[in-house]
Amino acid sequence: MNEASAIDFYFDFSSPYSYLLSEKIDTLAGHFGRKVRWHPILLGVVFQHLGGKAPAEIPPKRDYMRHDVLRSARFLGVPFQWPQRFPIPTQAAARSYYWLHGQDCTLARRFAHATFRAMFMEDRDISSPDAVLDIGASLDIDRAALTNAIAAPEMKDKLKLACADAITKGVFGAPWVIIDGEPFWGVDRLPQMEELLTKGKI
Amino acid sequence: MNEASAIDFYFDFSSPYSYLLSEKIDTLAGHFGRKVRWHPILLGVVFQHLGGKAPAEIPPKRDYMRHDVLRSARFLGVPFQWPQRFPIPTQAAARSYYWLHGQDCTLARRFAHATFRAMFMEDRDISSPDAVLDIGASLDIDRAALTNAIAAPEMKDKLKLACADAITKGVFGAPWVIIDGEPFWGVDRLPQMEELLTKGKI
Repeated sequence: MNEASAIDFYFDFSSPYSYLLSEKIDTLAGHFGRKVRWHPILLGVVFQHLGGKAPAEIPPKRDYMRHDVLRSARFLGVPFQWPQRFPIPTQAAARSYYWLHGQDCTLARRFAHATFRAMFMEDRDISSPDAVLDIGASLDIDRAALTNAIAAPEMKDKLKLACADAITKGVFGAPWVIIDGEPFWGVDRLPQMEELLTKGKI
Repeated sequence: MNEASAIDFYFDFSSPYSYLLSEKIDTLAGHFGRKVRWHPILLGVVFQHLGGKAPAEIPPKRDYMRHDVLRSARFLGVPFQWPQRFPIPTQAAARSYYWLHGQDCTLARRFAHATFRAMFMEDRDISSPDAVLDIGASLDIDRAALTNAIAAPEMKDKLKLACADAITKGVFGAPWVIIDGEPFWGVDRLPQMEELLTKGKI
């Protein structure tokens, strides 16, 4: 297991398909002795860069997605309920993730899972810094320190850089996974990811 | 086997993911004693109606798709090569299909397969009526009669109606499949289609 073989996972905390993959990717990677590097980004920044519409802005696409996400969650065996507010901005959650990751990557991973689940299992509005601080508190993360981190210029820059890096790598949606240079868009590419990991090619 | 249980398959002859599904859908349906109703449509009309950009108009999406289609073809075991011209208008092919279907639905199905394969296996430009007439000739379809059909107001209307019907049903991309009222977008939903057909629910 080395850094070179790590899998990259780009996501937005308010992306439901990203949440579904977040519940699967580490286990899949673990079967093949791989680590996963998680990269929260802001899909809004990506969509703005591309100049297209977000799926949620196109009514029939939005309606299909609301149905397809529930069906895909059942298909994958992942608990899911649609939050009242969707989509939402996720700066606070993403900056918190990067701040935590700088100190304790295991804690950052637990925070990421807790944040995704707060949004997609418990209908909590994670766009609110208070909600993010509550999630942090449940993991014994110091509230005052996390409050500062969310507003810190370094963390703002870190997130901006992560978005720019994702755009450079060709990311135009989420979840986005890169395994040995091979890009995969969508949780529905799980079978192809598994084939690549199993056979070493696809 | 009855009409009520038939599966609806909406596609554009120049959609590569539709071609991949066209090589799978009848066999899948057959395993469950189902028939498939094929509905060629024009994705350009659908995209124009929605006001969004076609995937091929967004450079990183286009680049990913060029790669993902090849990978998905290998994954599904379907022969594929990218045609020089893509995307292309497919009015001539779609109108021919509806005209043939009015006379002989088996022949129409053979024509549809031959047309998809001409584009995605043999790099033939099926936007040209001449290419469509050649495909027809290879199936012993009268060239003069098919020439008339391609230009016939009835066939133009039939295709317009098919596009309008697809939009009414919520279709915003292709391939699009409806099984017992359940909509599926994309060849990557094959495992979910199979689960629905196997279990009667999903």
